[in-house]
Amino acid sequence: MATIETILSPAQFHLYEEGIENKNVVVIDILRATTTICIAFENGVSEMIPVASPEEANALHERGYLAAAERHGETVSGFELGNSPQDYTAARVLNKRIAITTTNGTRALKLATNARRVFVGSFLNISALADILIRENKDVVLFCAGWKDKFNLEDTIYAGALAEALLVSMTPEGDATLAALDLYAMAQADLSGYLQKASHVHRFKTLHVESDLDVCLKRDISTKIPVFSKGVINLLLNEGAHI
Amino acid sequence: MATIETILSPAQFHLYEEGIENKNVVVIDILRATTTICIAFENGVSEMIPVASPEEANALHERGYLAAAERHGETVSGFELGNSPQDYTAARVLNKRIAITTTNGTRALKLATNARRVFVGSFLNISALADILIRENKDVVLFCAGWKDKFNLEDTIYAGALAEALLVSMTPEGDATLAALDLYAMAQADLSGYLQKASHVHRFKTLHVESDLDVCLKRDISTKIPVFSKGVINLLLNEGAHI
Repeated sequence: MATIETILSPAQFHLYEEGIENKNVVVIDILRATTTICIAFENGVSEMIPVASPEEANALHERGYLAAAERHGETVSGFELGNSPQDYTAARVLNKRIAITTTNGTRALKLATNARRVFVGSFLNISALADILIRENKDVVLFCAGWKDKFNLEDTIYAGALAEALLVSMTPEGDATLAALDLYAMAQADLSGYLQKASHVHRFKTLHVESDLDVCLKRDISTKIPVFSKGVINLLLNEGAHI
Repeated sequence: MATIETILSPAQFHLYEEGIENKNVVVIDILRATTTICIAFENGVSEMIPVASPEEANALHERGYLAAAERHGETVSGFELGNSPQDYTAARVLNKRIAITTTNGTRALKLATNARRVFVGSFLNISALADILIRENKDVVLFCAGWKDKFNLEDTIYAGALAEALLVSMTPEGDATLAALDLYAMAQADLSGYLQKASHVHRFKTLHVESDLDVCLKRDISTKIPVFSKGVINLLLNEGAHI
């Protein structure tokens, strides 16, 4: 039976690296990078390149990309896009290519690069993502981007939600997945209410972006599955031949 | 208000090191190192020295210490004591000095060495420990030893139990403490039943040491508080002048 492991923070990624080339990794940065990427693809972006620094995003801007940069929760001064999913409307992103750098999410994508396949997970596409993971039937690693290498609640809750959907044909491996499942069980009746206590939601209030929270918790508004491969995020459909 | 932070694994310790000299750290390795240390002090051991390797334990054995060594859950061949709290009876440890090396716990103690004070926590002395932490009224860091740098349920549940006792005069800081509190709330009605799913309890069954689990979950059978200072674990009472 395929297994479901959970990595609670990038500081633990190295403990799970062995054999990762045979595993499907889901990168999780619910507030907000991976949610924002899912929204962008739902709204028709043609490709996204996660980069390590605002400077790299600017370099791609000169080659025709929209440049998006977020640090510490805020849009970096001078950039047209930040990390708010509400910025990524069809009017702004349809058929565009975007270079994006964020505090946690882009780094996690790069760490996971040697995995069999690197999926971009969010509540927006959770059921479609669960379906494809079940269909592929490979060991799954749920990789929480966290906050500056620390544990966070929202990514863990999502790992629990996705793990629960996978239990139909996979088995949890390790205590982190069990904890994620239990925390999700506790939170699921009212995710937004549960997450009011999370550190990053307090950060949202300080930054006046509270309305992003509800956007990030919307379930199944997209069936599009972004995957990260060879430095670029594209839709899985574009790679159908690999399945 | 003093804060309660939680470190879910030694792989994250470095993220919490800044300012640790002003914080009280509780090292947590419920199955079994910190439980075993608490039992040993309850049964009259005079001091314990955590060492990194069986070789170091042997070197101290030649200087009159009892030598205890555990790796991967088992007593290292040739050692008189392992990591089972049931080995540490008064008949064996009263007025003795012990050198001990374990898979996770001794390493966590050494990592925490620069803290204001390093307490050895277990369910056995949880209320006495909560009392002293509240009395000292310094920021507290609950440091889970985990399993080979991975997250584990039993240490996190204990962190939640101790955090709950501290809430009377302290405030949780960071999502890891919130998660620990919630997992403990879920587990507390039947800790042993809840932990049956934990990876390390499965390991116990393989090693035929299941009876250790109930010993490790006994609450408040000791009021003794072991502290680690300058490489040695002693009772806090012996250091009263430092309070």
